[in-house]
Amino acid sequence: MTPVVALVCALALLTYPLPAGAQENRAARVASEWRQSHERQIIEEYFEFLKIPNVSRDKTNIRRNAEYLLKMMNTRGIASRLFEAPDTAPVVYGELLAPGATHTYVFYAHYDGQPVDPKDWATPPFKPVLRTRRLDNGGEIIPVLTHGQPIDPQWRIYARSASDDKAQILALLTAVDALRAAGLKPRANIKFVFEGEEEIGSPNLHKILSANRDLLKADLWLICDGPEHPSGHQTVTFGARGVQPLEITVYGPKRELHSGHYGNWAPNPALMLSQLLASMKGADGRVTIDHFYDGIVPLSELEKNAIAETPDEDEALRRDMWLGRTDGGGKRLAELINLPSLNIRGLASAHVGTQAANVIPATATAAIDLRLVKGVPHEQQAARVIDHIRKQGYYVTTSEPDEQTRLANPKVARVVVDPSGYDAVRTRMDLPIAQRVIAVARSVRSPVVLEPTSGGSVPLVVIEDILGVPTLSIPVVNYDNSQHSNNENVRLLNLWNGIEMQTALLMME
Amino acid sequence: MTPVVALVCALALLTYPLPAGAQENRAARVASEWRQSHERQIIEEYFEFLKIPNVSRDKTNIRRNAEYLLKMMNTRGIASRLFEAPDTAPVVYGELLAPGATHTYVFYAHYDGQPVDPKDWATPPFKPVLRTRRLDNGGEIIPVLTHGQPIDPQWRIYARSASDDKAQILALLTAVDALRAAGLKPRANIKFVFEGEEEIGSPNLHKILSANRDLLKADLWLICDGPEHPSGHQTVTFGARGVQPLEITVYGPKRELHSGHYGNWAPNPALMLSQLLASMKGADGRVTIDHFYDGIVPLSELEKNAIAETPDEDEALRRDMWLGRTDGGGKRLAELINLPSLNIRGLASAHVGTQAANVIPATATAAIDLRLVKGVPHEQQAARVIDHIRKQGYYVTTSEPDEQTRLANPKVARVVVDPSGYDAVRTRMDLPIAQRVIAVARSVRSPVVLEPTSGGSVPLVVIEDILGVPTLSIPVVNYDNSQHSNNENVRLLNLWNGIEMQTALLMME
Repeated sequence: MTPVVALVCALALLTYPLPAGAQENRAARVASEWRQSHERQIIEEYFEFLKIPNVSRDKTNIRRNAEYLLKMMNTRGIASRLFEAPDTAPVVYGELLAPGATHTYVFYAHYDGQPVDPKDWATPPFKPVLRTRRLDNGGEIIPVLTHGQPIDPQWRIYARSASDDKAQILALLTAVDALRAAGLKPRANIKFVFEGEEEIGSPNLHKILSANRDLLKADLWLICDGPEHPSGHQTVTFGARGVQPLEITVYGPKRELHSGHYGNWAPNPALMLSQLLASMKGADGRVTIDHFYDGIVPLSELEKNAIAETPDEDEALRRDMWLGRTDGGGKRLAELINLPSLNIRGLASAHVGTQAANVIPATATAAIDLRLVKGVPHEQQAARVIDHIRKQGYYVTTSEPDEQTRLANPKVARVVVDPSGYDAVRTRMDLPIAQRVIAVARSVRSPVVLEPTSGGSVPLVVIEDILGVPTLSIPVVNYDNSQHSNNENVRLLNLWNGIEMQTALLMME
Repeated sequence: MTPVVALVCALALLTYPLPAGAQENRAARVASEWRQSHERQIIEEYFEFLKIPNVSRDKTNIRRNAEYLLKMMNTRGIASRLFEAPDTAPVVYGELLAPGATHTYVFYAHYDGQPVDPKDWATPPFKPVLRTRRLDNGGEIIPVLTHGQPIDPQWRIYARSASDDKAQILALLTAVDALRAAGLKPRANIKFVFEGEEEIGSPNLHKILSANRDLLKADLWLICDGPEHPSGHQTVTFGARGVQPLEITVYGPKRELHSGHYGNWAPNPALMLSQLLASMKGADGRVTIDHFYDGIVPLSELEKNAIAETPDEDEALRRDMWLGRTDGGGKRLAELINLPSLNIRGLASAHVGTQAANVIPATATAAIDLRLVKGVPHEQQAARVIDHIRKQGYYVTTSEPDEQTRLANPKVARVVVDPSGYDAVRTRMDLPIAQRVIAVARSVRSPVVLEPTSGGSVPLVVIEDILGVPTLSIPVVNYDNSQHSNNENVRLLNLWNGIEMQTALLMME
C-alpha cells in the first residue's frame, strides 16, 4: 500500500464508519414489500419498454427508446434530459440531488441491444413473452397475466435486451418508485447515465463524457450490466475485459466458380480461411499467436483469493451447456476469464443447407472478437493477430483488394479492425469505496461473489480515463440469459433481487 | 484393342463411311442463315422461358417450366409428353421419328437450375436482361431490342439457367425450327429428354429410365450440358466426374454463449470446424484424407494425348479470375479435373458483418462436394471422409446429436451424406459412335477440343447402368457463364454456334 493509498483508506474509514449497511438494508426490505404488491404493474411496464426495438444501429428506434426512458424518468421525479452529439445515439441523463450531500454516485446502464435474426427466435425478439421456465428446459408461454394471479419468481421474460441491459434500468427505476412510495430520499447525489451505443463499442461515449466532465465526476460509477455468477449469488465485479472485434476476409476467385470445372485448381477461400484460423489456436483452445499472452498485469493476492473462493459451478455449467469437454487445459472458468481470448463469433462463405450450390466461393469471412485484460491494449493485440496472418504468407490489406493486388499475391486477406475496440479495466478491491459497496451488498444478500473481472466487456476505460473515477459492477441478471444471442431472457427472481439491491445502493451514503 | 472392339470398329466403318459430315455441315449452314434472320425472335422466346423460376426444389414453378416446354415442343411438331412419377419433377419427353431409320439418338438436357440468392445478383435472377459484355468487365444493360437493331454476338443474357441448362434446350428447339424452315428431316430417330431435377442430383432419373427402358434405348445419348473449353473451341466431352455432396456440422455449447463470459472455456465450434477442414487438405490443395486417391482408373493413351493437345488457357484463366496462384502443384487444369476433388462449397456459423454478435456459436457447418472419377465410387469416397473425421477424434452421427451424446463425447460431428451422390462416367474415345460425333463436330467448327471428362457432373452413370447406352457431351455455353452462382449468363455467340452444332447433330445419320 502506498502512503497515498493508506491516507485515502484512513480518510475512508472516517467517512464510512463500518459495519455499514443498516440503512441500505432497511431500504431494500421496503423495496421488497413494495415490489410484492406491484409485480404485475412492473412486468407490464417492462413489456412496453421491451417492445421498442433497440438494435444499436437502428437509430430511429434507438431514439424512441431514449424518449421513452426520458418519460419514465420524468414521471418518477428524476430531472432528466438527453445528451446529444452529431451522429450519436442520445445518452439519457437524470439526477436526484440530495441537498448537502458530500458524495455522488453515477449509475450507468445501456438501453441498446445486439443485432437480432428473428428466424432464430422462438418468439419475435421485440414481442416480449413470459415463460414458465427456460425455453430449452420446456418453458411454456403464459398468455395473459390476470389480476391477482400469483407470479412465480422462476418465470422468465423473453425479449431482446430483457437482460442486457434493459433489466438493470427497470430495476433502478423501480427502486426509485419504492423509495418514493416509502418517502425515502437518497443521501448522496444520484446520477443516471443510460447509453444507447454500448453494443457497438460505445464509439461516442468519450465525447459525451468530455463535454459533461464536471457533471459526471463522482465518487464511483456503478456499472449496471452483466450477469451474476452462475451460482446465483450476489456478485460484485471489479472490472471488465476489453474487447476488439475484427473481421478477416480471404479471397479466392474473382467470382464464384463451378466447383467441378475448377475444383483442384482454383484455390478455395473457405479452405484457406479454415487453415488460417486453425493456425491461431491449439486443440485445447490456447492461442498460438506469438506474444498473445505477453504483458498481462498479474493478479493481486486479494484477487487471487477472490477467484479461489468463487463457487465452482464449472461441472454444472458444462452439463447445462451439453459440452463434452472444456478448453483451458483444466483451468477453471473463473481463472480463464482473467486471460485474453480469441473467439470466432461467426463464419460465412457462400451457402450451406438447401441454399448450397456447387461452387468454389469467391470469399470467406470470419468475424472475431478479442477479449483483453489489463496490460494487453486492444491496438497491440489486433496488431499481433495481423502479424500472425502475415506470417502465414498473407498479404494483408484493410480495404477491398483490387485486381493487381490479388494477382500479385498468392494469398490475400482483408482485415478490418473495428474502431470500437477498447481496453480492460480492473478496479482495486482494497479501495475504500470498493469495500463500502461490498458491505452494502452483503447487508442485502449473502454470500457475495467477488469477481476481479467480468469475462464480458463494458467500456469502463473511457470513464477511468476521462473522469478519473473508479467503476464497479453490480450485476442483476441470471447467467443463463442468452444475452447477445437469440431467445434472450431474464428470470423474474433476478429482477426482484435487483430492485432490492439497487434500492440499497441508491441509499448508500 | 480387344477382338470384340476391333470387330465393332470394322462394322462401324461400314455403317459410317468416312469422311463424314457433309450433310450435317450443310444443315448447320442452313441453320446459320435462318438464325441470322430470326435473332430477335429467338432472344424474345428465350426471355419468356427464362422468366419462369426454375430452382429444383420449387416444385410449383418446375411444373410451369415443364408445361411451357411441352408447348414449345408441340408447336414445333415434336410429339411430346410428360413422364411423371410420384414426388418427381416431370421429365419432358419428345420425339421426331424418321421412318425406316436404323439409329436413334437421345438429346438430354435439364430445365431446372441451382438455388438463387437474389441479393447477390445485379439484376433479379428470373428477370432476364441483355448486357453489352460480361458484367464484371463493365457490361451494361441493353434496355429494349428494337426491330432491325443489329445484335452483337458478344452480348450476353443474364438470368438463372441462361447457360445451365436452358441454353442447350433453346439451341436444340431453334435447330428444329431451322430444319423445319428448310424442309429438312432428321435421318435418325431423334428423342428429347429434358429433366427437372438435375441440380439436386437427379434423384428420380433411374425411375423414369427404368419405366421407359425400351423407349429410351438408343445408339447414343447426347448430353447437352456444361461449358465449352475456355479456349472457345468446340468441345466434345467423353464423360463427367461423379459428385457426392455432404454436410458436416460440429457442435459447441447447446445454445450460443456470450463470448466474454465463456471465452477460453467453452469450445468454439467454428474453430473446431476450421481445424477439421484444415486437416483435410494441404497448402497446395492436395487432399490429405487417407486413400482419397486410391482406385483411380488410369487414363488411356488416347485420353492422355487429348489432354496434352488441349489448348493451355490456364494463365489467361488465372488472370481473368484474379488468382495469385493455383492449386495442384503445377499441374494443368486439364489434368487436374481427372482427379477426385474435395471442395468446401459453403461455411456458416452464427453471423458476420453487421449481424455479428459477440457469441460463441452453438454450431458450425461446412457444405462440401466431392467430385469423383472412374474407379472412385461415391459411397466409398464419403466413407473415407467420415473415417478421416473419426480419426480427428470425432464421434460421428447422421442425426442431430442429443444431450447424452454431446456430454459423452469431447467432439461431435453430424455428417449428412446427400442421397443424390453418383459415380463418374467416361466413354471410350475409340468407340465408333464417338469417332462419328467427332467427325460431325469437326465438319461444323474446327478445331475441336476432346475432353476425356468434364470437371462438372451429370448423372450419366444412370443412363449407362440402366440403358447400357454410351453418352457424349457437346457443350454449347461459354466457360465464364457463372453457372451455379449469381449473375449467370450466356454469350449470344455461344447460342448461335450451339444452334448450328445441334442442327448438325440432329441430322446425323
